[in-house]
Amino acid sequence: MSATDHEWSGGSLIKGAWVQGESTFTATDPSSGASLAGLFYSAGAKTIAEAGDAAQEALPGYRALPLRQRAEFLRSIAKRIDQAADQIVGRAQQETALPEPRLRGETARTTGQLRLFANWIEEGSWLDARIDRADPNRKPAAKPDLRLANEPVGPVAVFGASNFPLAFSVAGGDSAAVLSAGCPVIVRAHPLHPGTSELTAVCVLEAIKECGVPSGVFGMLQGNEYQVGQGLVLHPAVKAVAFTGSYRGGKALFDLAASRPEPIPFYAEMGSINPVFVLSGALTERADAIARGWVESLTLGVGQFCTNPGILVTQRGPALDRFVQAAGQRIQEIPSGTMLSATILGAWQEGTQRLRGTKAASEPLTPSTEKERESRATFFLVSGESFLKDKALQEEIFGPTGIVVVCNDADELIGVAACLRGQLTATVHAAANDGALARQLIPLLRQRAGRILFSGFPTGVEVSHAMQHGGPFPATTDSRSTSVGTLAIRRFLRPVAYQNVSDPFLPEALQNTNPLGILRLVDGVWTRDAV
Amino acid sequence: MSATDHEWSGGSLIKGAWVQGESTFTATDPSSGASLAGLFYSAGAKTIAEAGDAAQEALPGYRALPLRQRAEFLRSIAKRIDQAADQIVGRAQQETALPEPRLRGETARTTGQLRLFANWIEEGSWLDARIDRADPNRKPAAKPDLRLANEPVGPVAVFGASNFPLAFSVAGGDSAAVLSAGCPVIVRAHPLHPGTSELTAVCVLEAIKECGVPSGVFGMLQGNEYQVGQGLVLHPAVKAVAFTGSYRGGKALFDLAASRPEPIPFYAEMGSINPVFVLSGALTERADAIARGWVESLTLGVGQFCTNPGILVTQRGPALDRFVQAAGQRIQEIPSGTMLSATILGAWQEGTQRLRGTKAASEPLTPSTEKERESRATFFLVSGESFLKDKALQEEIFGPTGIVVVCNDADELIGVAACLRGQLTATVHAAANDGALARQLIPLLRQRAGRILFSGFPTGVEVSHAMQHGGPFPATTDSRSTSVGTLAIRRFLRPVAYQNVSDPFLPEALQNTNPLGILRLVDGVWTRDAV
Repeated sequence: MSATDHEWSGGSLIKGAWVQGESTFTATDPSSGASLAGLFYSAGAKTIAEAGDAAQEALPGYRALPLRQRAEFLRSIAKRIDQAADQIVGRAQQETALPEPRLRGETARTTGQLRLFANWIEEGSWLDARIDRADPNRKPAAKPDLRLANEPVGPVAVFGASNFPLAFSVAGGDSAAVLSAGCPVIVRAHPLHPGTSELTAVCVLEAIKECGVPSGVFGMLQGNEYQVGQGLVLHPAVKAVAFTGSYRGGKALFDLAASRPEPIPFYAEMGSINPVFVLSGALTERADAIARGWVESLTLGVGQFCTNPGILVTQRGPALDRFVQAAGQRIQEIPSGTMLSATILGAWQEGTQRLRGTKAASEPLTPSTEKERESRATFFLVSGESFLKDKALQEEIFGPTGIVVVCNDADELIGVAACLRGQLTATVHAAANDGALARQLIPLLRQRAGRILFSGFPTGVEVSHAMQHGGPFPATTDSRSTSVGTLAIRRFLRPVAYQNVSDPFLPEALQNTNPLGILRLVDGVWTRDAV
Repeated sequence: MSATDHEWSGGSLIKGAWVQGESTFTATDPSSGASLAGLFYSAGAKTIAEAGDAAQEALPGYRALPLRQRAEFLRSIAKRIDQAADQIVGRAQQETALPEPRLRGETARTTGQLRLFANWIEEGSWLDARIDRADPNRKPAAKPDLRLANEPVGPVAVFGASNFPLAFSVAGGDSAAVLSAGCPVIVRAHPLHPGTSELTAVCVLEAIKECGVPSGVFGMLQGNEYQVGQGLVLHPAVKAVAFTGSYRGGKALFDLAASRPEPIPFYAEMGSINPVFVLSGALTERADAIARGWVESLTLGVGQFCTNPGILVTQRGPALDRFVQAAGQRIQEIPSGTMLSATILGAWQEGTQRLRGTKAASEPLTPSTEKERESRATFFLVSGESFLKDKALQEEIFGPTGIVVVCNDADELIGVAACLRGQLTATVHAAANDGALARQLIPLLRQRAGRILFSGFPTGVEVSHAMQHGGPFPATTDSRSTSVGTLAIRRFLRPVAYQNVSDPFLPEALQNTNPLGILRLVDGVWTRDAV
């Protein structure tokens, strides 16, 4: 079935029913500016209230499902998305102008995430089960039996990202983590891709029906007004929020979440400039390859990744010219590209023009004119001294624009590392003779970034157990959390202890026989044994 | 050595040096209102700034110490406190009017905490080490080598509590958790016990010297002005705050932390009313014993515990009179007691008087007059209906005042459970024939409390692996965290991932041979094996 065969409801999804409204909007094809099929409705206050209430109501039933059934639910969503992939990818292409292979890859990533989380639910160590056995003979007071396991925090709001219509959206990583934790989810669909969102929500709805899950476990709000997200964050049933987007949007909603009568955790991933440090040995050895690799990472997906390597920091030296030339050559080969929306294109143009107007920044080559509605990649050179002086150069320009920071010496390069704000990633290219400087650099980067890379480039975020996609503020609002990988589940859990509670009243994770067969900390020792 | 032999510096401790100031204050004996020996200085803006800077400067060196040395540091603090126990307990008695056996017990708890954390540092599973091995043959893209382990978040501010001059203070549970995580700590000493704080800080300082730890790892600010704590929370080097105290104080500082240019996690444990549900079967079987147990828990330490069982919820029935009579009899035997300060006594008097003025609350017996500066325990009866109507009855009265909520039937009792705000604890007393109601009750309590108890009473918080001393708002500002037990360390950690980083540049926790011998998640399987 192709996207054009779908009969658009256009509404928000509440307890398995599509709810329309008064204010309407349509999706736009960013490559033409034309409206796409389907009339969508912005959720009003009443719909938002109902979505929160439905999630709250679904919590006890969903939490009580056997973990195996919870896992099957995620697998069923994945299966439905695989089945509807042609349709979803077709619509996503229209709404985002992202190329088909990228969207096919993103679909595989999305279903892969759901299946990874399904397995992780069953693995069970995320429950963090702990048992300290009683000791009635302890002096001066008897020691009680104490047991602890994680509980879902409650309903969670998830904000879809503009740049990942599938993997960070309706059934993306955040939703997968929320549902794995046992929490109902309410997705605020991104207004740039309401159609892709509806098609994905249909898959979730089918999985709900197949798996006997309470229908309020998944809600989705459509809308092209700020009030939709704001209303959702303020709903008293919502106990946490996961957001991927801009600093401006994320910080405003973070402040709103903190200002509630009951403040709630707000996990915003707001992007960063992802510095790449090229030490002089590496530059001498591999100037050409690093230049090409950097330009390719910088321009991947028209530069619209939060791990886009916006700055490259290196040292003046004989290899620098070679690097600049190779980067210039490669960047001229990159075709211009359609960005996700006119607004995103406009912000990129503005940021790039601002750099052009900055005295301290020079542009080695003037890019040929881009087509209308498209961006053309470019990069600038800035001295280490200027970078240290001008904090504005640390601001992210979302899109294919890079800055090469040229330091006079190793000390200045260390100074640049020390002045950086919080980052999602930091990359080091070092040769054998760069070891001493690398040793100085790494501890600084570890304090400032969520992920450290050697060689390579930061785009392409692996979905696995050891991934940290997060970092100190302003990269995120909570450096203790990741929004990619199995560790992401922890954002939606809280520990509950049980004192002298008899076995039948304990959660399965804590019962004597260890019916789930999970790893537990018993009297300070990790074991799968019964107690 | 007794407390009177100590030559008081009265200053704040910065990098191993005592820094005095201009504005001064003294400690007060709450049993007499008299000033105690020692002139103390409120830290000014310059001192606060220096404390934060010193902690920041100490971070890399402290983080880099071998875990064994970090553990020895905590053991050394414990040893010094044991050695100085007579002196510390003597001064604490003067400053808090808490009886000697209680303070001896609290000292043992404090050193026990430090030793538990020292062992836990070496156990290493809190590092949450994870390794996903590379797969160069994976299609469509090679899989990188990814490794993840926790890092200290940075310097942490700890606010000492009024009611635990040792265990939740200078070298208490929060400080132990902070230091275990590899973070420098800056303690804001509680203004009610500056002397006890100075004596404890001397112990920490000696341990710093013995163990070769950077002196900036521990700082302490004295002061009797709000500005001291506010200034500390606003210091840019401070990356998290742990607080134990009142809702008013905690919430104000939470708002301040969220309003910083860089918002930081603020972990406030603000107390609660810790409901005890006595189901009708249990009431019939054990009215006398439960009444006595409740009164004893309610009045322990003059009711000055955050786990004080402020309300008991039960059902009307033949056993109720027996319960009220037994509770009344026991409460009359409880001597009046000196509270921690005149302010705390005043707030208790006000809260109790407010209850006396509430039409819906009846006081079964009028307590005999307390001595000046002392409080005398009492309790009130309130109908379930009134409790559901009047939200003010859910407000904590810090001190020995209880409320018995008498419900007409099981449904009303469930209604009371469902209307409760976030709690540190919730207790259920059930007999064999109460099983059905207990099964209805537990899921409600699990959503609202951090710790569920069967029988027993919530005072007496065990320090162990499976303890959760926390709970949903307003009991704390972060239900995902505990301030007691080894899980408390997690508040001060953030994960960092390493991609294709060569072995010598990895933290020990992630090196191929597993030199720390810790449990690690390797390709999704927990193991201590090398990779």
